[in-house]
Amino acid sequence: MDQIAYVNGSFLPLADAKVSILDRGFLFADGIYEVAAVLDGKLIDNASHLARLERSVGEIALALPETTDRIQEIQKELVARNNLVNGMVYLEVTRGADSGRDFAFPKSGVKPTLIMFTSVKDIINAPSAKTGIAVITVPDIRWERRDIKSVALLAQVLAKQAAAEAGAGEAWMIEEGMVTEGGSSSAFILTQDDVLVTRQNSSAILPGCTRKAVVALAEERQLRVEERPFSVQEALAAKEAFTTSATVFVQAVVSIDGKTVANGKPGPMTNRLREIYVDFARATAV
Amino acid sequence: MDQIAYVNGSFLPLADAKVSILDRGFLFADGIYEVAAVLDGKLIDNASHLARLERSVGEIALALPETTDRIQEIQKELVARNNLVNGMVYLEVTRGADSGRDFAFPKSGVKPTLIMFTSVKDIINAPSAKTGIAVITVPDIRWERRDIKSVALLAQVLAKQAAAEAGAGEAWMIEEGMVTEGGSSSAFILTQDDVLVTRQNSSAILPGCTRKAVVALAEERQLRVEERPFSVQEALAAKEAFTTSATVFVQAVVSIDGKTVANGKPGPMTNRLREIYVDFARATAV
Repeated sequence: MDQIAYVNGSFLPLADAKVSILDRGFLFADGIYEVAAVLDGKLIDNASHLARLERSVGEIALALPETTDRIQEIQKELVARNNLVNGMVYLEVTRGADSGRDFAFPKSGVKPTLIMFTSVKDIINAPSAKTGIAVITVPDIRWERRDIKSVALLAQVLAKQAAAEAGAGEAWMIEEGMVTEGGSSSAFILTQDDVLVTRQNSSAILPGCTRKAVVALAEERQLRVEERPFSVQEALAAKEAFTTSATVFVQAVVSIDGKTVANGKPGPMTNRLREIYVDFARATAV
Repeated sequence: MDQIAYVNGSFLPLADAKVSILDRGFLFADGIYEVAAVLDGKLIDNASHLARLERSVGEIALALPETTDRIQEIQKELVARNNLVNGMVYLEVTRGADSGRDFAFPKSGVKPTLIMFTSVKDIINAPSAKTGIAVITVPDIRWERRDIKSVALLAQVLAKQAAAEAGAGEAWMIEEGMVTEGGSSSAFILTQDDVLVTRQNSSAILPGCTRKAVVALAEERQLRVEERPFSVQEALAAKEAFTTSATVFVQAVVSIDGKTVANGKPGPMTNRLREIYVDFARATAV
C-alpha cells in the first residue's frame, strides 16, 4: 500500500505530496518542524512537542494554520491511515508560498503550509538501544537561535554526515570547549558521583522534549540532576553517557572520538532511564 | 500568460512547479541558490554566479545535476520562454528527495533537485536607485559558514523583516561591533579620504558577485579600495555608503538606524559606480 502523507488539508500518496517551489520552507528555511514518536499506534509525549511547536512558531512570528488540537487530530488520522504501529510522525509548518521571492514576510493572504508524513521505526528494539552508539565531536557552527526548531538544518546535516562517515551514530557539537548537544539529540552524562548532567536550556540548544521528560522522571526518582555544560573530557571520565531524542528515546553513548566511555557498554543508569522513559511514554501516549 | 518555471528537466507553469515534501531543500535547507539579474533579456555577470554556485555546492559535497554550461542554457531558455526583458532568474540546487528523512546524505541514486523561476524587475529604474535606501542594524546571528550560499536563510528573513517593519530597505548585520553585510547585499562605504571600504571575504560573509565586480571596476579606475571590516560609526562618518547585490546592482544607503549618512542623498561616487557597473553588466551580458 502506498504511504499516505498530509499536505494543506489533503491526505494523499507520499509520491504526490508536494509543495510549490515558491514555498518559503524550500526557499528560505522559513519553517518549523516537530517529530513525535509512535508506539503501538499512539503518539508519544505529543503535548510537549505541540507546546514546543507553538513556542517555535511564536519566536519567528509564524501563525499556525490549524489549532494544536486539530494538528493532533491530523497526526492521529495519518497514523491510522498508514496503519502505523511503531515509528514517528514528522510535521512541518512553513510561512507558505508567496507569489514571488521576498525575504520579508508575505503580505496577509498567504496561508502557512502544513505537511506531515510518517516513518516506520521499531524504536524499542533498535539495535543501537542494546549496543549504544559511538559519537564524534565537531565544532558547533550553528546560528545563535538553536532554541527555535527551524528547518535551517544544514549545519546539523553536515555534522551528522561527518558522524556517518566516521561510522558513528551522532555528532556532539562543541562550543567554547563544552558540548552543546547532538546533531539531533540532547547530550547527558552520569558523573562518578552519580549526578546526571545535561546542559541547561538557553538559545545555545534546542529544548529537547525527551530531555525534559528524562530530567523530570529522574528528579521524581530523587536522582541528582545538574543542568550545566560539560566538556568532552568530563564525558570521557564519566560513569555513563547517553543521548535523548524523540526517535531514539534514551540511547547509550559508548565512545567519543574513538575513546571508550567507561567500559564501552551501555551503563545501568542509562538502561534504567530508558525503561523509565518507555514506561512513561506508554502510560501517557495518546 | 502563465509564468514558466523549470523543475528537474521540465519547463512547466509556475503553479505546477513543485517539489516533494521529502526534498532535502524543504526538510533540511540542504541546498544552494543563486540569483542572476537579467537586462534586455540577457544574463548579467552569470559566469561569476555559476562559479560561486560550483564553489558553494563543493563546500557541502553536493554534486550539480547538470554542468554549469547546461545550467546557463536552461537559464536562457527560461528567460526566453517567459519573454523576460528585465528581472532575474532564481536557481536552487538541493540534495534531492530521498525515500525518508535522514540527516546524513542519501545513498547514491538520489538525484539532486534543480529548479529555476524568473521574476520581473526593472532594476535600472528602481525608485530606490534614485532615492537610496534606509538601513537598520541587527545583530548577526547567522551560522559560521556564511560564505556558502545556502537556503538556510531564516536569520536573513528575520533581519529583513525587521528592516521592512522599520520602513528600511535593508538590515546591516553587526558582529563584534563591525558590519558583516546586509541581509541580501554587500556593504560599502566611501571614507572622507575617498577610500572605498568593504569587508574582506571570509567565512563571515558571502563572497558577493556584484561586490567582486564593483571592487575590480573601482580598482581598474585607480580608486583606492580597502577590504576590511568597518563599524556603523565609521559608516555614519563616511562621505557615502552603499550596498551591492545581483538584484539592486549598486544602491545608495542614505541613513543607518535613522541617522543620515552625509546629506542623506545618494552620493556622486555611488552614482558613478552604479553607472560603471551597469555599463559592465550590459557589456558582458550573455
